[in-house]
Amino acid sequence: MKHMNNKLMKGYKFNSFFTETKNNKKLKIGLISIEPYGECVSAFTKNLLKSNSIIVSQKHLKKTDKVRYILTNSGCANTACGKDGLKITEEICGYLAKQLGIKKEEVLIASTGVIGEPLPKEVFINSIPKLISSLSDNKSSVVEFAKSILTTDTKPKVVYKHFKNNNVLCIAKGAGMIAPQLKLYKPHATMLVFLLTDLWIEKKLMEKLMKETVVPLFNSFSIDGDTSPNDTIFFVSLRDRNSYKLSNNELKKFSEVLKFVCEETIKQLLFDGEGVTKVVKIIIENCSKEKSEVLARTISNSLLVKTAINGADPNWGRILAAIGRSGVKLDIDKVDIYIGKHCVVKNGTSNFVDDKVVRETMLNNFFEIKIDIKSRKKESFVFYTTDLSKKYVDINSKYKT
Amino acid sequence: MKHMNNKLMKGYKFNSFFTETKNNKKLKIGLISIEPYGECVSAFTKNLLKSNSIIVSQKHLKKTDKVRYILTNSGCANTACGKDGLKITEEICGYLAKQLGIKKEEVLIASTGVIGEPLPKEVFINSIPKLISSLSDNKSSVVEFAKSILTTDTKPKVVYKHFKNNNVLCIAKGAGMIAPQLKLYKPHATMLVFLLTDLWIEKKLMEKLMKETVVPLFNSFSIDGDTSPNDTIFFVSLRDRNSYKLSNNELKKFSEVLKFVCEETIKQLLFDGEGVTKVVKIIIENCSKEKSEVLARTISNSLLVKTAINGADPNWGRILAAIGRSGVKLDIDKVDIYIGKHCVVKNGTSNFVDDKVVRETMLNNFFEIKIDIKSRKKESFVFYTTDLSKKYVDINSKYKT
Repeated sequence: MKHMNNKLMKGYKFNSFFTETKNNKKLKIGLISIEPYGECVSAFTKNLLKSNSIIVSQKHLKKTDKVRYILTNSGCANTACGKDGLKITEEICGYLAKQLGIKKEEVLIASTGVIGEPLPKEVFINSIPKLISSLSDNKSSVVEFAKSILTTDTKPKVVYKHFKNNNVLCIAKGAGMIAPQLKLYKPHATMLVFLLTDLWIEKKLMEKLMKETVVPLFNSFSIDGDTSPNDTIFFVSLRDRNSYKLSNNELKKFSEVLKFVCEETIKQLLFDGEGVTKVVKIIIENCSKEKSEVLARTISNSLLVKTAINGADPNWGRILAAIGRSGVKLDIDKVDIYIGKHCVVKNGTSNFVDDKVVRETMLNNFFEIKIDIKSRKKESFVFYTTDLSKKYVDINSKYKT
Repeated sequence: MKHMNNKLMKGYKFNSFFTETKNNKKLKIGLISIEPYGECVSAFTKNLLKSNSIIVSQKHLKKTDKVRYILTNSGCANTACGKDGLKITEEICGYLAKQLGIKKEEVLIASTGVIGEPLPKEVFINSIPKLISSLSDNKSSVVEFAKSILTTDTKPKVVYKHFKNNNVLCIAKGAGMIAPQLKLYKPHATMLVFLLTDLWIEKKLMEKLMKETVVPLFNSFSIDGDTSPNDTIFFVSLRDRNSYKLSNNELKKFSEVLKFVCEETIKQLLFDGEGVTKVVKIIIENCSKEKSEVLARTISNSLLVKTAINGADPNWGRILAAIGRSGVKLDIDKVDIYIGKHCVVKNGTSNFVDDKVVRETMLNNFFEIKIDIKSRKKESFVFYTTDLSKKYVDINSKYKT
């Protein structure tokens, strides 16, 4: 955030505050305004269970190409909360639109929190005038907004980068129930990502960037393997006639910037994951992408691998056993496993490396596990995961009650 | 074990003791003798990675119908341990056979422990004469043997039942890396199960019992979702000409006894699972068996569900989200979820039951979660799982080092 001026970027303003429901439950509400308006490409969770906030946003995105406001909240997932849940969501968006004299479908909404309770309508209705009245483009309002979407995260996630006197800003949250499997225009998360730029990017280019850069990156990490019903990415490009238009020639360079911003955001999400003390980069080599993803997710979700990472325990047998039980057809007698630079498994069997040496690598808070499947498919795949600590158990056995 | 006399059952003798390897690592060795001999039907892990003990046992079972000795050890999985690992396993079985004047293939072997080290040959060679010399049919030797196969288990698992003046004895171990997916004659665990009877059961009937009763039961529970490369069930029937022969007419009654013995063993395994404080019976109703198994395993392996169980937190949204991300095609708006007798989710949405009431049920160390999918398939499926506690993390972040 060293490049941030007091005014961060044109077109976007932010506001947020903490409030309480009738039952003294904490609720944080946030609002992003986009002037004159933005074009939005979105991605949502693949979970069959969907937040009402996702259902309403999808409906609105189908009706219009103009996005003027994004309403957010943390403390309530707005998911599986009865017949009225959807109606209340519509009413809240409708009330906001009415106050602003815009169309209801020009409002998007994203929620995170506990599943099973509808949005507290009164709290929203009472908060909306205040939210609208003090929107700001000051950088401190961005940080405050980033804080307002947090649940069990401990730090706000804001990544910012210049591109030819223009700006790319990414605000995100997500520490648990994190194993994004996003589909373009299809439901998935409680990872919320707001990827905003004051550049004018044609919708087709936005879709290309989303499909080829943004979604694959956000689908390649997991904290706990639990894909949320609320995961949402809103990628917004400003529609200001003075905006700089991204040309086809600049697409490659811009996608590099976007990649940097997404990777930096994911790094922040991983290291602030629930109880996380270590982040591991899993690299699968010489294997088809489909098989690699199953292998990476199986290793990533193995309780025994995650706890071994937590304790810096070079118990690579757990990695090899996870590969063997993954359901992927492969020749286990060909598999090599590296922890950092150490080849611990050669051709499916111990390479007899001293545990103490491997443990040194695993004591770092970031290291690589590379798996060479040596199949004919010469593709490679990268996936990030975390350890499982006692603190994770502590956080998640106490969350709701 | 209240029915046990000093001599437990004819035909079977046991011995075991604790020893140490060169590097001062603990190793426990055990031996079961079957006189005159037994017929064995086996099931092994589905994991592509296989213990050398499984590879050798499979080879021996193909060569002969006679099983005279079962050699066991805990402390070393005998898995992924170099080219010599298999050779050493063969040599150990060969040495035992030579000492006894029997054929090598009449010896089976089962191992559990850390992956990556071969069996310490010298320790076995030195221990075998002692193992052979003091075999006993005393019930205390059964308990000692049951202790000798333990790793992180805290209690020996012995289940015993009469059947028409004959006996069924089950000795088992397994506290972590427990998610059996056994296949008849195919490799799978570090669950070890020795299911022994002094009844004469024809091989075809044994195979039927194994396929229809034993394997489905042992495949229907999970502690941590990590299917081991060592899982083994040896089901042995005595071939003594004085043995009582099980008739076809008695099959149903006997299978009830066998079911009781297996269920009791599984209960003991679950409650003694690594760090386990709660056991949950998951019942999936009105759904095909294939889909039910995927649903049950997804719920069972969800870190968020497991930690909620640990904290008796009625956060049913995590169960519904796990169903939604399972990959199973279903109508999420039809799903009902019961925790104990409380219907917490009705037609995919909150039934607004007071959390405090549900929490009362979840404070028990055993309760049921019932999920009604309401599909046209009217099948039902039962699966057992456990919570995830800080102690599990503690045990598994320290295991090897």
